[in-house]
Amino acid sequence: MAIKRNKISVIGSGFTGATTALMLAQKELGDVVLVDIPNMEDPTKGKALDMFEASPVQGFDAKITGTSNYEDTKDSDLVIITAGVARKPGMSRDDLVNTNAKIMKTVAKDVAKYSPHCLIVVLSNPVDAMTYTAFKESGFPKERVIGQSGVLDTARFRSFIAEELNLSVKDITGFVLGGHGDNMVPLIRYSYAGGIPLEKLISKDRLDEIVARTRTGGGEIVSLLGNGSAYYAPAASLTVMAEAILKDQRRVIPAIAYLEGEYGYSDIYLGVPTILGANGIEEIIELDLTDEEKAALDKSADSVKNVLKVLQ
Amino acid sequence: MAIKRNKISVIGSGFTGATTALMLAQKELGDVVLVDIPNMEDPTKGKALDMFEASPVQGFDAKITGTSNYEDTKDSDLVIITAGVARKPGMSRDDLVNTNAKIMKTVAKDVAKYSPHCLIVVLSNPVDAMTYTAFKESGFPKERVIGQSGVLDTARFRSFIAEELNLSVKDITGFVLGGHGDNMVPLIRYSYAGGIPLEKLISKDRLDEIVARTRTGGGEIVSLLGNGSAYYAPAASLTVMAEAILKDQRRVIPAIAYLEGEYGYSDIYLGVPTILGANGIEEIIELDLTDEEKAALDKSADSVKNVLKVLQ
Amino acid sequence: MAIKRNKISVIGSGFTGATTALMLAQKELGDVVLVDIPNMEDPTKGKALDMFEASPVQGFDAKITGTSNYEDTKDSDLVIITAGVARKPGMSRDDLVNTNAKIMKTVAKDVAKYSPHCLIVVLSNPVDAMTYTAFKESGFPKERVIGQSGVLDTARFRSFIAEELNLSVKDITGFVLGGHGDNMVPLIRYSYAGGIPLEKLISKDRLDEIVARTRTGGGEIVSLLGNGSAYYAPAASLTVMAEAILKDQRRVIPAIAYLEGEYGYSDIYLGVPTILGANGIEEIIELDLTDEEKAALDKSADSVKNVLKVLQ
Amino acid sequence: MAIKRNKISVIGSGFTGATTALMLAQKELGDVVLVDIPNMEDPTKGKALDMFEASPVQGFDAKITGTSNYEDTKDSDLVIITAGVARKPGMSRDDLVNTNAKIMKTVAKDVAKYSPHCLIVVLSNPVDAMTYTAFKESGFPKERVIGQSGVLDTARFRSFIAEELNLSVKDITGFVLGGHGDNMVPLIRYSYAGGIPLEKLISKDRLDEIVARTRTGGGEIVSLLGNGSAYYAPAASLTVMAEAILKDQRRVIPAIAYLEGEYGYSDIYLGVPTILGANGIEEIIELDLTDEEKAALDKSADSVKNVLKVLQ
Repeated sequence: MAIKRNKISVIGSGFTGATTALMLAQKELGDVVLVDIPNMEDPTKGKALDMFEASPVQGFDAKITGTSNYEDTKDSDLVIITAGVARKPGMSRDDLVNTNAKIMKTVAKDVAKYSPHCLIVVLSNPVDAMTYTAFKESGFPKERVIGQSGVLDTARFRSFIAEELNLSVKDITGFVLGGHGDNMVPLIRYSYAGGIPLEKLISKDRLDEIVARTRTGGGEIVSLLGNGSAYYAPAASLTVMAEAILKDQRRVIPAIAYLEGEYGYSDIYLGVPTILGANGIEEIIELDLTDEEKAALDKSADSVKNVLKVLQ
Repeated sequence: MAIKRNKISVIGSGFTGATTALMLAQKELGDVVLVDIPNMEDPTKGKALDMFEASPVQGFDAKITGTSNYEDTKDSDLVIITAGVARKPGMSRDDLVNTNAKIMKTVAKDVAKYSPHCLIVVLSNPVDAMTYTAFKESGFPKERVIGQSGVLDTARFRSFIAEELNLSVKDITGFVLGGHGDNMVPLIRYSYAGGIPLEKLISKDRLDEIVARTRTGGGEIVSLLGNGSAYYAPAASLTVMAEAILKDQRRVIPAIAYLEGEYGYSDIYLGVPTILGANGIEEIIELDLTDEEKAALDKSADSVKNVLKVLQ
Repeated sequence: MAIKRNKISVIGSGFTGATTALMLAQKELGDVVLVDIPNMEDPTKGKALDMFEASPVQGFDAKITGTSNYEDTKDSDLVIITAGVARKPGMSRDDLVNTNAKIMKTVAKDVAKYSPHCLIVVLSNPVDAMTYTAFKESGFPKERVIGQSGVLDTARFRSFIAEELNLSVKDITGFVLGGHGDNMVPLIRYSYAGGIPLEKLISKDRLDEIVARTRTGGGEIVSLLGNGSAYYAPAASLTVMAEAILKDQRRVIPAIAYLEGEYGYSDIYLGVPTILGANGIEEIIELDLTDEEKAALDKSADSVKNVLKVLQ
Repeated sequence: MAIKRNKISVIGSGFTGATTALMLAQKELGDVVLVDIPNMEDPTKGKALDMFEASPVQGFDAKITGTSNYEDTKDSDLVIITAGVARKPGMSRDDLVNTNAKIMKTVAKDVAKYSPHCLIVVLSNPVDAMTYTAFKESGFPKERVIGQSGVLDTARFRSFIAEELNLSVKDITGFVLGGHGDNMVPLIRYSYAGGIPLEKLISKDRLDEIVARTRTGGGEIVSLLGNGSAYYAPAASLTVMAEAILKDQRRVIPAIAYLEGEYGYSDIYLGVPTILGANGIEEIIELDLTDEEKAALDKSADSVKNVLKVLQ
């Protein structure tokens, strides 16, 4: 089998999509195709060109191209979908879901058409439902369609803990189950600083505050920015998932996976600990939950199901 | 002398400033303070927080904070200035110069006040004049106030050549003198692919086209983006200059330096080959120029002087 | 305060010392001085030169020099001591201790003379006693003299677990207290795969086998090599400690620290969880131990004390 | 086509082979199999295990295994051959050639048998002849059998120049044609500091001295080490060639290539500028040479032919 570069397509050239493209290229994970709709073609090309022009200076070797033509994504190894609109004032949650689902259907079909063997990682919101939509529309096996939420949620948690303890972020780990943001189910007992359970280092009250801040971590950035939402940490999260897949690392990563009985749920995409490698989700790790944790996860699953109902 | 982390302040939290902050942090060059005006304080904090939240995932260790208070920049080792407005439709060039000079004066004074021993790297446009302004207002010795243009111009040139020859950007080098963009003076005879002069690999006509494209490389991105200008490659360019300084690498880098007789010019900031290290511009390298090159450089210097006149 | 490169001296140019010098340089942590005794001066210079010749290809920027003259280590920020003889057939343990202690005394005095403000990290065996010797002879405050053992012990443990579970080493953590090797006290309950306690993923019997293999991990390499002992993983361990210090990362790292009452011991160097930063050991983290763990740690401490007795 | 990790086999587990394995793994270029003869199997396994144990600390993700069984190299994407004996006192050059050719024949056949689609990079000495032998015995197409010499020769030259000018190695380039070491043909006019021809920065006499030192750069290390030869810079050189191939970078790299008329030679392996990518030598770049350069290259080619004659 011949040696070849990986090809990665990123759908949606907004800040998150563009920053993801940059980070993928910086890590030389493959050549990157940044895709957006026809009337965004020029800005997409502009961003791709600007990044490519950064490559001689940063010393990374990757082709980066912008396009609105899915033919250019042909035979991608991995497709990352960030496309979708943000919720605007006055827009109901259901409107948002239906608008983004409509976008996702088109995107997923085009992706599957041109890259029938690729893996898909979804970021678009609401991410559990959008990953489900991508799964259904692509017709791909479940392990090849994956959603991002837990990497980002734990990243925020880890940052806050590192700041709290004045320690390096490198030594802080976090653990989360369930849906994104409000519905996340943090497993504090599996979260550590240098391997030491956080409960031994931080008071319960303070930990609760940090968990609460993490839940609304996306909203905190939205509210600070005033116009738009977070993109650096989301892009970093997508990139680490891409790296685990493209380098076949078999990393333990929280991801939104299709469940068929795991944790007692079926026909739903929900955040669970997984092993990510070249085949996508190579395994779902099932943990024993306390009653409290299980109840919180049920609530999270219900919330996802409610969104899925809107789609039908 | 105690071991300590470097502290880097980036003035201006627009796309270029923010992307520079990210790249500095990714390379763990120091802790980063991102600064903007008071009514941009929240978005600045938001970007800084979003980046910090990316750090556990990307594995870099750097504090990144947003502020509108120059006290937070106290004792920076390096300050990078990207502040300034973009030229708007209907705005004369002189208006732009005067507006940005006014901003630069305030910034440079605040920088000098809080970090009297720092080095300053300027990106704000028009960069030759703005570097001159920062030099005058800071009262710093000339070697500690430096402008960026040549790294970016050669980065663009290198990208275009790599694409033309279908070779890695890693092996392409370029060389440029004089002002930024339109006024750049490319020295093709000092530009290579794997050490082989480009003139042996590409026809003169095609090289001329690529030089022309490089000159208007900034405009090409502006025109594609439709709204705003390049920031990835500019940020990468600032970061490589910061790295050369903070790691005392004594790299050969084209930079905008204060000339006192070099190349026949005085009391002007102009793009020349320099050696960048812990002391800033440690040396200006003087090259013999052909008559044609000297004429082009004269024209470039005249153009810079004309802008400087506006300032008085 | 001026920007300056860090200076790191590595005492002992054997395989571990030399590999450490390479890894420090690869990470651009500073300029490296590799030191050995006068009759090893030429090989030391040879290794340093060979490494420096690797630098243009690997793209790292660090001066690496070999010497037998401690004047060349003047004003080091960090000194790593790997000097010492290996135990030879027929040599008693006490002979080894006394021979290496004699070497350490000379080295520590020379280090302190030329770099009175540096931090010292010790690898020489038996490491607990040699760190104690370096502390006494240098006259440095306790936080600036540190021994390495836990990073290496946990590295081996993490490798074995990653192999056992077929997961990325990136997601496996381990935790160890006490002396090196035979006397290490593993805290399995603080060891995880992706944050999940190993006890949930691996049977107790198998974990016991892996712990046993870890204890004798150094011997396993010695026995395979036939001639000499491990150096890649020890060098990597020293390098990560150097990075935590030189970048002031405040990382949670198991290190051999001087105890004054912590864990109930005094006037002893013993492996404990620490926070490593620019000041060396910035904090010792005290954990509640089970009776079994405390008994094992007592045994480990006794063993260290027995070695210390030999020194008197 | 499924995503898969690259597999790289390194034949010969001496210092160069082992250091190459480490550097390949550090860059996560693939999983590494380190191979040596049966009675070196244990030390080979020991080195591989020691490196793997360094991986959690250095944060790289690569399987590294030691073996004496070529079956373990099955389906390698790239095989790097460092096997061979060093010249011992009293050994004639012809004896060395024949001994190493005998080794190479066995190795090349085993490599071709188990990895019929791989690329081969040869370091074994005398490298021009050994690459020729590997080519003949493997039966591979010429572009898939490549020798290393120019990367190492230019690396040494670049180091010496960087030291001479007190500049970063990052900005120094060198250019060399012909055989390794004594027979190398340096093209000073294609060698630069920051793009500036070295002849403008260093006197001709001093350049001649540096070229002379480069020619005997291998001998300088041998003579310093007293026992053995260089391995850090050779390993780095092999690794950058491996990276160019495995990441399909199309880099301009001096390599020992099979010539069929290029530069006027045929049926010979000789050092020339090449483009290295996924297909191995994708192109040989032919340069116009001065009469003096051509004469030196003729001499170099004659020297290689003389060695090849010994083989028949």
